Amino acid sequence: MTATPSRTWADASVVADLARVRAQAPLTHCFTNLVVTNFTANLLLAAGASPAMVFAIEEVADFAAIAGGVLINVGTVTAPEAEAMRVTARCAHAAGTPWVLDPVAVGGLKLRTDLAAELVGSRPAIIRGNGSEILALAGAAATAKGVDSTAGAEEAVDAARGLARSTGAVVAVSGAVDHVTDGETLVTVPGGDPLLTRVTGTGCGLGALMAALLAVSDSPLDAAVCASAVLAVAGERAAAVARGTGSFAVALLDEISLLGSDPPLEIG
Amino acid sequence: MTATPSRTWADASVVADLARVRAQAPLTHCFTNLVVTNFTANLLLAAGASPAMVFAIEEVADFAAIAGGVLINVGTVTAPEAEAMRVTARCAHAAGTPWVLDPVAVGGLKLRTDLAAELVGSRPAIIRGNGSEILALAGAAATAKGVDSTAGAEEAVDAARGLARSTGAVVAVSGAVDHVTDGETLVTVPGGDPLLTRVTGTGCGLGALMAALLAVSDSPLDAAVCASAVLAVAGERAAAVARGTGSFAVALLDEISLLGSDPPLEIG
Amino acid sequence: MTATPSRTWADASVVADLARVRAQAPLTHCFTNLVVTNFTANLLLAAGASPAMVFAIEEVADFAAIAGGVLINVGTVTAPEAEAMRVTARCAHAAGTPWVLDPVAVGGLKLRTDLAAELVGSRPAIIRGNGSEILALAGAAATAKGVDSTAGAEEAVDAARGLARSTGAVVAVSGAVDHVTDGETLVTVPGGDPLLTRVTGTGCGLGALMAALLAVSDSPLDAAVCASAVLAVAGERAAAVARGTGSFAVALLDEISLLGSDPPLEIG
Repeated sequence: MTATPSRTWADASVVADLARVRAQAPLTHCFTNLVVTNFTANLLLAAGASPAMVFAIEEVADFAAIAGGVLINVGTVTAPEAEAMRVTARCAHAAGTPWVLDPVAVGGLKLRTDLAAELVGSRPAIIRGNGSEILALAGAAATAKGVDSTAGAEEAVDAARGLARSTGAVVAVSGAVDHVTDGETLVTVPGGDPLLTRVTGTGCGLGALMAALLAVSDSPLDAAVCASAVLAVAGERAAAVARGTGSFAVALLDEISLLGSDPPLEIG
Repeated sequence: MTATPSRTWADASVVADLARVRAQAPLTHCFTNLVVTNFTANLLLAAGASPAMVFAIEEVADFAAIAGGVLINVGTVTAPEAEAMRVTARCAHAAGTPWVLDPVAVGGLKLRTDLAAELVGSRPAIIRGNGSEILALAGAAATAKGVDSTAGAEEAVDAARGLARSTGAVVAVSGAVDHVTDGETLVTVPGGDPLLTRVTGTGCGLGALMAALLAVSDSPLDAAVCASAVLAVAGERAAAVARGTGSFAVALLDEISLLGSDPPLEIG
Repeated sequence: MTATPSRTWADASVVADLARVRAQAPLTHCFTNLVVTNFTANLLLAAGASPAMVFAIEEVADFAAIAGGVLINVGTVTAPEAEAMRVTARCAHAAGTPWVLDPVAVGGLKLRTDLAAELVGSRPAIIRGNGSEILALAGAAATAKGVDSTAGAEEAVDAARGLARSTGAVVAVSGAVDHVTDGETLVTVPGGDPLLTRVTGTGCGLGALMAALLAVSDSPLDAAVCASAVLAVAGERAAAVARGTGSFAVALLDEISLLGSDPPLEIG
């Protein structure tokens, strides 16, 4: 039995991929939910990417074509937005722009569950979710409770591998340890901090960071692993300086902005 | 004449109710306005609740039934959202899920004023607003200026008592001193800090916290009082460490996350 | 050749205009994009204004009439919102309420580009954008990349002067040095910090601050210059105390809240 490789911020390839984001500032289109727009944009800016959010069905096609990476996150989707997301996914796929699907709370709610299943047909490069969401999207029996996972990341690994094989996407299962697989290779990313679950948008921001990395990485697997490792180490460092959940969120952005910044971010 | 009882964080019942939120992490559905989504979710997470926001008319019915508590806040409502709010309120009522109505800026603007009056028919457990909003919802003459109150909390107490009696809801009037009444008992909650009016979403977050507490408290009166007392003491403590309005908002979340955390929130 | 006058926080007129905002707390209606709602409201509260956001087409007309200043920012506009923005602009103009147009990402995307060109007909008092956006709105050839400018502020000055003359608006071009013109006078506002480009919503917040200042200033030129000078000095002071991009955003609000506060903001 082969040992599962583990990757962290200590890996040179992870550092190199983040450095490419800072050098190229990829335009990253985030069609994300209304709870995390601001935090997502600030997380991408901290990492050196150029975030943008366009929701109009009249504009998403043009924008998907010029973006370096796209995120579709169904967290607060309504029917008109679902239609614009379908167009976004189709046009990203047609234009060759790699994109990330974040199936927030899929499983328990019908509109988003049907939508996510349909969006998979437009070939996301990465699908990122917690264990319950990946289990649900894979068609397995999942018990979802709102937006939080009731399934451990490990339980969802088999479902993730199957989903990766059936869709061609890299599947990233977020949890205490993240699991990322392209259907063959399975990479674990340890680290992080429980405080990451006490601030809204850390998972959604992780999906956005994957979209930015898709524009500069050698493979979707590398992109998903780098983003997970960046969030894990930044979460650890932020927890070391935070006083509570409010200052943890601020410190998380600080740590991402300072991470591998070369030349260092000029502050003060 | 009976003295009005006053309750604060010093009361064991208040501490106990917040502890129940931390222990049970009630799923709290916030159909709230677009200005405060992120802050509201982070405030609930700081208190130990599990926030979720669903806006699709196709999903709100299912979600209201599984949530422990629901908030409907009309702050940035549009006509399609109003319809989804009506469904949310009806389904919460039908499912026995207690819910909070926050009639932001009701009085001066027609769509929300008509909507709020209609929503009251779905029997909110708590109605929370500032003095002007409660006066307007009670049909009294109120002078509203945007979203800020021009009526003191005290002036609105009579209107609050009448509104509570006519609707069956507990009515909470936020102000320098909060007033909470079920139509018979009137409880005051002193404390807080003027800085709470210099950060957007503290009142809206208070309504959300009441929705979380409805899932675990013995009565809507207890839920409204506990939430008010938590925000008041956290506001005082945050003001003691803040440098300006930006760091006050961060410290407010910190203080809520640290409040009565047992075991203490592990940081650093 | 006349030297271009330069104005900063060191100018008494700038200090006086901000003091008027603190004294009068003008109701400022922000029809802004979904990424920056919270930050915009907090920035206005830090400056002493009274922010409000109303998006319903049934309510914007009434609200534009009672507001002291209005902002229309097309950053995340959809077709239904575009219609409500048209009503907002027409009613603000009809009611004599001065308003600011922020043409975010105009040039590259059709819905907003057509909309912004149409909105100009309702006579904004100020048009604020980065170099690419002003060039695009002026009909000049601009190369836009998402929401970030690829044109320097200086390059856009000629276009700004032409746009000011043809529309009657003051045009403010944000950049490393801000340029503000009414078509005749050109004022530069130096200062600020590159970190202002690493946090989302600083430009959008600047437009909102201009809307608040329109309610109290002697002229749109004064309003645009004062807002630019306030953001510049607050950005410098925030950069001096920030640890990364997260704490910079928090410190920026702190510094605005402390700026010229008389009596000083009571904290702690």
